Amino acid sequence: MTSYFEGIDKIKYEGLKSDNQLAFRWYDKNKQVLGKSMAEQLRFAVCYWHSFCWNGFDPFGYDGTFTRPWHKIADVKEQALAKADVAFDFFTKLDVPFYCFHDRDVIGEGKTPQESKKLLWEMSDVLAKKQQDTGVKLLWGTANAFSNRRYMSGAGTNPDFEVFAFAAAQIREVLEVTHKLGGENYVLWGGREGYETLINTDLKKEGQSFGRLLNLIVEHKHKIGFKGTILIEPKPREPSKHQYDFDVQTVYGFLKAHGLEKEIKVNIEGNHATLAGHTFEHEIAMAVAYDIMGSIDMNRGDYQCGWDTDQFPNSIPDTALAYYYLMQGGGYTTGGTNFDAKVRRQSIDPVDMFYGHVGAMDVCARSLLIAEQMINDGKLAKAVSDRYSSWNGQLAQDTLAGKVSLADLSKYVLDKNVDPAPTSGRQEYLENLLNQYI
Amino acid sequence: MTSYFEGIDKIKYEGLKSDNQLAFRWYDKNKQVLGKSMAEQLRFAVCYWHSFCWNGFDPFGYDGTFTRPWHKIADVKEQALAKADVAFDFFTKLDVPFYCFHDRDVIGEGKTPQESKKLLWEMSDVLAKKQQDTGVKLLWGTANAFSNRRYMSGAGTNPDFEVFAFAAAQIREVLEVTHKLGGENYVLWGGREGYETLINTDLKKEGQSFGRLLNLIVEHKHKIGFKGTILIEPKPREPSKHQYDFDVQTVYGFLKAHGLEKEIKVNIEGNHATLAGHTFEHEIAMAVAYDIMGSIDMNRGDYQCGWDTDQFPNSIPDTALAYYYLMQGGGYTTGGTNFDAKVRRQSIDPVDMFYGHVGAMDVCARSLLIAEQMINDGKLAKAVSDRYSSWNGQLAQDTLAGKVSLADLSKYVLDKNVDPAPTSGRQEYLENLLNQYI
Amino acid sequence: MTSYFEGIDKIKYEGLKSDNQLAFRWYDKNKQVLGKSMAEQLRFAVCYWHSFCWNGFDPFGYDGTFTRPWHKIADVKEQALAKADVAFDFFTKLDVPFYCFHDRDVIGEGKTPQESKKLLWEMSDVLAKKQQDTGVKLLWGTANAFSNRRYMSGAGTNPDFEVFAFAAAQIREVLEVTHKLGGENYVLWGGREGYETLINTDLKKEGQSFGRLLNLIVEHKHKIGFKGTILIEPKPREPSKHQYDFDVQTVYGFLKAHGLEKEIKVNIEGNHATLAGHTFEHEIAMAVAYDIMGSIDMNRGDYQCGWDTDQFPNSIPDTALAYYYLMQGGGYTTGGTNFDAKVRRQSIDPVDMFYGHVGAMDVCARSLLIAEQMINDGKLAKAVSDRYSSWNGQLAQDTLAGKVSLADLSKYVLDKNVDPAPTSGRQEYLENLLNQYI
Amino acid sequence: MTSYFEGIDKIKYEGLKSDNQLAFRWYDKNKQVLGKSMAEQLRFAVCYWHSFCWNGFDPFGYDGTFTRPWHKIADVKEQALAKADVAFDFFTKLDVPFYCFHDRDVIGEGKTPQESKKLLWEMSDVLAKKQQDTGVKLLWGTANAFSNRRYMSGAGTNPDFEVFAFAAAQIREVLEVTHKLGGENYVLWGGREGYETLINTDLKKEGQSFGRLLNLIVEHKHKIGFKGTILIEPKPREPSKHQYDFDVQTVYGFLKAHGLEKEIKVNIEGNHATLAGHTFEHEIAMAVAYDIMGSIDMNRGDYQCGWDTDQFPNSIPDTALAYYYLMQGGGYTTGGTNFDAKVRRQSIDPVDMFYGHVGAMDVCARSLLIAEQMINDGKLAKAVSDRYSSWNGQLAQDTLAGKVSLADLSKYVLDKNVDPAPTSGRQEYLENLLNQYI
Repeated sequence: MTSYFEGIDKIKYEGLKSDNQLAFRWYDKNKQVLGKSMAEQLRFAVCYWHSFCWNGFDPFGYDGTFTRPWHKIADVKEQALAKADVAFDFFTKLDVPFYCFHDRDVIGEGKTPQESKKLLWEMSDVLAKKQQDTGVKLLWGTANAFSNRRYMSGAGTNPDFEVFAFAAAQIREVLEVTHKLGGENYVLWGGREGYETLINTDLKKEGQSFGRLLNLIVEHKHKIGFKGTILIEPKPREPSKHQYDFDVQTVYGFLKAHGLEKEIKVNIEGNHATLAGHTFEHEIAMAVAYDIMGSIDMNRGDYQCGWDTDQFPNSIPDTALAYYYLMQGGGYTTGGTNFDAKVRRQSIDPVDMFYGHVGAMDVCARSLLIAEQMINDGKLAKAVSDRYSSWNGQLAQDTLAGKVSLADLSKYVLDKNVDPAPTSGRQEYLENLLNQYI
Repeated sequence: MTSYFEGIDKIKYEGLKSDNQLAFRWYDKNKQVLGKSMAEQLRFAVCYWHSFCWNGFDPFGYDGTFTRPWHKIADVKEQALAKADVAFDFFTKLDVPFYCFHDRDVIGEGKTPQESKKLLWEMSDVLAKKQQDTGVKLLWGTANAFSNRRYMSGAGTNPDFEVFAFAAAQIREVLEVTHKLGGENYVLWGGREGYETLINTDLKKEGQSFGRLLNLIVEHKHKIGFKGTILIEPKPREPSKHQYDFDVQTVYGFLKAHGLEKEIKVNIEGNHATLAGHTFEHEIAMAVAYDIMGSIDMNRGDYQCGWDTDQFPNSIPDTALAYYYLMQGGGYTTGGTNFDAKVRRQSIDPVDMFYGHVGAMDVCARSLLIAEQMINDGKLAKAVSDRYSSWNGQLAQDTLAGKVSLADLSKYVLDKNVDPAPTSGRQEYLENLLNQYI
Repeated sequence: MTSYFEGIDKIKYEGLKSDNQLAFRWYDKNKQVLGKSMAEQLRFAVCYWHSFCWNGFDPFGYDGTFTRPWHKIADVKEQALAKADVAFDFFTKLDVPFYCFHDRDVIGEGKTPQESKKLLWEMSDVLAKKQQDTGVKLLWGTANAFSNRRYMSGAGTNPDFEVFAFAAAQIREVLEVTHKLGGENYVLWGGREGYETLINTDLKKEGQSFGRLLNLIVEHKHKIGFKGTILIEPKPREPSKHQYDFDVQTVYGFLKAHGLEKEIKVNIEGNHATLAGHTFEHEIAMAVAYDIMGSIDMNRGDYQCGWDTDQFPNSIPDTALAYYYLMQGGGYTTGGTNFDAKVRRQSIDPVDMFYGHVGAMDVCARSLLIAEQMINDGKLAKAVSDRYSSWNGQLAQDTLAGKVSLADLSKYVLDKNVDPAPTSGRQEYLENLLNQYI
Repeated sequence: MTSYFEGIDKIKYEGLKSDNQLAFRWYDKNKQVLGKSMAEQLRFAVCYWHSFCWNGFDPFGYDGTFTRPWHKIADVKEQALAKADVAFDFFTKLDVPFYCFHDRDVIGEGKTPQESKKLLWEMSDVLAKKQQDTGVKLLWGTANAFSNRRYMSGAGTNPDFEVFAFAAAQIREVLEVTHKLGGENYVLWGGREGYETLINTDLKKEGQSFGRLLNLIVEHKHKIGFKGTILIEPKPREPSKHQYDFDVQTVYGFLKAHGLEKEIKVNIEGNHATLAGHTFEHEIAMAVAYDIMGSIDMNRGDYQCGWDTDQFPNSIPDTALAYYYLMQGGGYTTGGTNFDAKVRRQSIDPVDMFYGHVGAMDVCARSLLIAEQMINDGKLAKAVSDRYSSWNGQLAQDTLAGKVSLADLSKYVLDKNVDPAPTSGRQEYLENLLNQYI
């Protein structure tokens, strides 16, 4: 049988001197960085959906551009098997340790919930075997509760309780399959958990049902002994007009409101940060500050377009800052760097899938090395901690500890005639410093 | 003494037949709407800053365009008195029940904290007298902790503890002056409580000190017996690159994290909703859903420009939806409709200040009448509650009550072979319905 | 045979007292407005694509939500006939005078250019018959040169000359079919005439070939005696990252560069104005100022989302301003108001298509009446012309006529010691005035 | 006399091994790059306004943060002299070859046009002497026709002809002073040449008067023998709601409409590209394609904030692409790299002005070296020219030459049964290639 990727060998590290566009110039998986190998720090994963399910369609080009051969196979099981062959061939040639999937990516839906369940569990045996044969592991699984028309008005926030129940049942299976396959996390992305128009929506009811769904999932996780992390992926909008998981700060508030801030962490996507009006590093630093940093969906959006382009990351400075804040926060535990990215619809050749991933892996590896240097030098961290040093004083500490009242502070200022002189924030200096690492 | 507004009489309600641009066509203060007079429902306030302090400068036109005579008065007290005369003349001629101020609006700063305190308390006597003479009341006071250069890096989130203490001392005075003047709320707007660049910032430390400041204020409020509401005003950015009070959902999470969700409510500004990527009505409906709706800073931004234009509201549909969600949530308690709006810098005549406010008051009054009709008809509310009716069933209620597990729901779906048929969201129908009220 | 719209009768004007959501409250087709009937002024058209071709898919919900029965018909001709039956049934029940189509909307593509040509011409006979039977006319036709994968890198700007030639051949047929069917305009929308990434693009070459294509079309139009207008539809991006027809001003420059500013006009879409960072009325007023105003694709975008939502217009103020500037410029000649709008994908019932269009037609009719009032009152126009009255002076006229040099003006200023006092722009006053018409 | 920059020596090139933050690591002025020295290729200029005129105010921090000593000098001439001393001290220590100014930057306005003229010409002698003493040259001069309140409604587009005349007179002097000082260009930035609201605006009249002004300037330039280039600086909005010089394509159309496309070129600012929804490199490449590339205002905006932040450039990839397209187009002739950038208002120390400029100069120098590599390798240019190679064929060339009709192309396609197979756009491959240069 011929490989879809015929003529493309396993991608290897060849270093900066190589001119081979199908080799790693920076990603040297065994190289030690900040106390672990690059592979262990970066924990790369390839996603199933963009590379093996999408056919290159867009809203103005209905039929797709890719002509992947397995898309033509009509039988649901045969298509699933052919797709899995290509997918694991790709994972192996790319030499990534992990992959991620939605249930509907790995095999299509059946005509009834029972048939869908049966198909998924049968396919899970195939995947288990593939994992064993190749050594590729599952970073996370997730349920697609947004593509089927039944979910057009949401899953956990659907006005129809039957749809909610349907979603709950679907999630149960995927959570258990993820558990079976040794998945290290389980992800919730709620693209339709929001509204198209406020005027047909009850925000309070939708908040309650969504909060209940999360609790049901967490309870079930503990019941079945799944040790992985439950992750929520913030996104402000698209396909919805407004999604409740707007950004990291919003998700934190939601978790807190439902008593889940110790149970659920975030899966941060670069492009979603852009859509929410934030930098990627902002979202990561915020998650670290709130202690809910989980995993990364690595991609980039477009600063000029207002939709979800899911491009491969290619900005060294942006990606370096992302890894800097991630590593400052201790790096991944169960999380990883999942490429939730797709080749452009004009990139129609099989080899383009490799160009996309190889280039992105190199961008991440290079960024990790930059982050390492920044952390080892410690200049940036020191500049920040120096800036806040006055908070180490006794009165400041007492204030934070709640031992001091507004009146006390007022008395201090009036008695001492406090007149604080502003200090330069040194933004340009620090930006120059950053560029020295790049 | 000649009035700055010579030739402009008290603005009166003249109804739709009037062609007088200096009369109300819709705002009939004694007209009953939803059980109260229009004046009681709308609770209009004029802000001190935009009309009496700003001189028409912008980042490209340093010197201002307005040539208000009181701006030329050098002596701090004399300027304050002249300004107060004009302000209360304006409030009275416009016939609004409330006004709002920052400490630095009503009188300039002294050379020391003590002198500033003395100036403010002296001025508070003047304001008290003016209030008594005119019947105009204070909707809210607030401390300007962002204009002076000492606050360039924040007040409650400043890296320098001395600045934090200075802000605390300043807030204490304004809170107490607000209390003395019978203010119905105290507002916190933290335009510099954010960052200019993440690379010189410690998000966690700033979150902690800001949370502590809010608690200090709440504690002090109770200590002095202030019965008004403490309000936070969300804004995503500007002047900062990122402000921690990004939007209503973010503020809720912050309050929850610091145990303040019962103590502090939100003051929602139309323009800030726009900047955060939300509609105005979204922010209000969200605050109602979270039970933190407090007050409104009524203005509009510009959908094409990305900065804070603070224009007078002029969109009937947008404002009607804002009042609909507000009134659905029960309307104001201590809050009100404060015009945080300024005439354009090309609107240089005294009469332009009247055009701005009179038109805006009419837009609000007309919008309130639309909201009344929508509520009385009840068609929209019924369409929404019908849409969620399946959640009234037993299993749905048990699910929300936590009596049902993921496995139970899964069993239900698999046993019953649940296959929910999607129902039309009827967005176009409801949009047409809305337009019938306008 | 049962109608897809069974139970829905022809939509009639019932006026404001009607509570019937399937009646016009404002659109009274024979009512005289500004010297013509409403029908003649508004020249409504329904588009084929959104209502009869789209199945409700979006980038996250691959399969669509609508289940239109004709979409299931496999045979290309039979599907086309069934679709045309539904379409003309809809046009008739809605009582619109016009429709618009892309070639690929009315009938699918054949396996060869010749077969595609044959299919289209055969179908044109069906359409001609339908037009004759119903009285519905063709506002404009256009070639779909963006959906098929061959056009993924553009049509008139494709790096591959063969694709350019293919597009040229396709356009020729559609232009001639449009001519045959009495179409009043021919439209060019170049969604892929731009770039995905600048780094694989030659801007100059693409500009040249696109300019040449437009000239070829204009030459052919004259050759075949087509009297309709050639229209270009500006759009800044999506599906491309950057589209060359960014907005009205850009299109004007492009036409001017290729000597086409007298030959081609613009088809302005509301949503595209939003995406370009403009108001809808700006684009119309600009086209009027440059004398290239042609036709309107009536819809609305979403001010918070950055993609092309193509919603039905529902803002009275926005639409009123659009018609005001259009009518100020003399109204339509060959152009019309084409609803390039689609029901939301949650609006899955046949009746939703009527709600969408009926509500939108009423919004337009109401807006036209507002525009009429504004024009008849003339207050706004007078305020504007008064504002520029100093340009009627001799020196000003001489300056515009090129009879005065920079040195002359300098001498005038220095000699006369000119010190112009600024005059209020009266924005708030004029905004209030506007609201009086709404 | 003590220098404001005491303790800071002339900035020198020290190379990558240096840890000195006040040394160049990349900018080695004599190093040969693409056939000229770095200094000759980059042609750096410092602007007068941001560093020597702005006091750190912003819309929320009225009074500024910087406390520059010369701002306290009340006498207009003395202030001007003190400012010039600091400015030329800075230029010299930074070792830049050029500077730029507005008339009102170098000396304040007089009470009458004649007095203003006199002040400016007197000051021009001081500047001439400074230029001679230091060797620093004038890249361009410009008239500030936007800050004074008389210009609140525009200069060349003002509804009041007297203001137009005043602007013309002012521009005459600055153009002649620029000529006297050997300025290599004259710039027009029309921040108020647009509108605040369309409803008080006559687009057509404003277009005509603005076009006339440009022609007056060009005529005067030739009359006085000024050999420099007249430059227009595109910007979409801010301070205006809409500025007529929206972007490069719009400016081209405007020039073309007024017969000026051979007389005037563009001065492209990075931040303005961002505000217009474009990348910086897009604007440069577009100007090169239209043959109107003139000069660069080097800075960066913020991708999350919608206003004009004028930050120093710090993105290597973005700046490298800018120089790549500039150098592809032949590089500068009379233009240069002017830093229209300001230190953040928290960067209050004199040394921060050096950090800002030194870092930015290094970013530019490094970017130029990257561009050199890209050009010398030629891989990217070859990939692009290969992509369009089919246009070298006879039929394609004949088509471009206008020898082929639509019917000819149609015949070709139908006869040959043309069925073009799409070719991969190779975006990911090319993006990876780009990163190899960085």
